[in-house]
Amino acid sequence: MDYYSKQISKLIEELSSLPGIGSKSAQRLAFHLLNLPQERVEQFAGTILEAKRNVRYCKTCFTLTDDEECPICKNPARNRKMIMVVENTRDLAAYEKTGQFEGVYHVLHGAISPMLGIGPNDIKLKELMVRLAGDVDEVIVATNSSLEGETTAMYISKLIKPTGIKVTRIASGVPVGGDLEYIDEVTLLRALEGRVEL
Amino acid sequence: MDYYSKQISKLIEELSSLPGIGSKSAQRLAFHLLNLPQERVEQFAGTILEAKRNVRYCKTCFTLTDDEECPICKNPARNRKMIMVVENTRDLAAYEKTGQFEGVYHVLHGAISPMLGIGPNDIKLKELMVRLAGDVDEVIVATNSSLEGETTAMYISKLIKPTGIKVTRIASGVPVGGDLEYIDEVTLLRALEGRVEL
Repeated sequence: MDYYSKQISKLIEELSSLPGIGSKSAQRLAFHLLNLPQERVEQFAGTILEAKRNVRYCKTCFTLTDDEECPICKNPARNRKMIMVVENTRDLAAYEKTGQFEGVYHVLHGAISPMLGIGPNDIKLKELMVRLAGDVDEVIVATNSSLEGETTAMYISKLIKPTGIKVTRIASGVPVGGDLEYIDEVTLLRALEGRVEL
Repeated sequence: MDYYSKQISKLIEELSSLPGIGSKSAQRLAFHLLNLPQERVEQFAGTILEAKRNVRYCKTCFTLTDDEECPICKNPARNRKMIMVVENTRDLAAYEKTGQFEGVYHVLHGAISPMLGIGPNDIKLKELMVRLAGDVDEVIVATNSSLEGETTAMYISKLIKPTGIKVTRIASGVPVGGDLEYIDEVTLLRALEGRVEL
C-alpha cells in the first residue's frame, strides 16, 4: 500500500488483522479514527487497554468478567445445581438473553477439535469435573451444533455418566421461523428424531 | 447489555461506534481483542495512538500523511502543473492505484453540502486557490458523482474559470464491466451525452 504514508499503512494493516475486517473496511476505519478528535482516539485506545488489563476468567464458571467472580455466579437466586456448559462467553450471553435459564454456566473456551489439535486438556474440562464434585443435579451441554461441538458434547457425556449426574444436550431441530425447504438434511433428520407428542 | 460485565460492555459499545460495525461484529471484535496476548493488544492500541499523533495534513496538497509534505508532493517526477482535486485521501489512493496519473493532488476533506451545512469555507478550497497563483495548466475535478460532489465541482469550475486555468471534470458513464440493465438512468444518460467517436 504505497498510496498511503507509513503510519497510515501500518494502522490499516493492524485493523485488517481483525476478524471480518477486509482491506476496504480497514481503510474506512483507519480514516474514521484519524478524523476523530485526539481525546476520542485516546478514549478508544484506553477502553481496549483497560478491558484487556482487567478482564479475566470468573473463578467459578470461567466466563470473561471484570471481577474475581462473575455477576451470574455471585447471584444467590441462580440454581447452582444446574450447570449449562457453553463454548464461550458469547454463547453464555446468547442464553442469558432468553432470560429463562435459572441455572449457572461453565465456559469451556473452545471445543475439542482433532483437526486443529485442540484436545480435552486445552479447554476448561478439568475445571468442570472439579465443580461436579459439589452438589450438582444436571449438566446441560450447550456446545455448538458443529462437528467440534458435537464431539465435545459426546466426550463430556462419557466423562460425566460414571458420576451418576444427569447429562443433557440442547435440542437440535428446525429453528423457529425457519423455512423447511432451506434447511439442510441433517437438521431435518434431527428434527424428525427429536419429534415430541402434541 | 447486562449479559456482559461492565468493561466488556464498554468495549463492545466503543467498537459499535465505528462505521459499519454493528452490535454482533462489535461483540466478535471485542472477544477477539480480549483473547489476544497482552503485548498484541498494546501494539494494536499503540498503532492507533501513534498514527493519530503523527498523521497530519500535507502542507501542499492537504492529504493525510506522516511528514510535513507527502511523498507525492515531494516527488520531483510529478507534474505540478496538473492538479487533481479529490474529496479525501482514500479517493487520492484510488487514483494512485491506477498508476497512470502523473500530476499532483489537492484534497478538499469534504464536499459542499447545504443539507449538512458544509459550505465552501469548510473544505480546503481557499488553499486550492492559493496554489493556483503558481504555475498551473489544468485542474481536474475528481469529486464524487454524488449531489455534493457535483455541487462542489460546479462551484470549483465557477471559481477557477476567471483565472483562465483549464478546469476539467472526470467522465461520468457506464463503469467498465457494468451491465447496462442494472445501471441507473442518470448514469445511462450521462454515458450517452459523453459518447466519443470510434
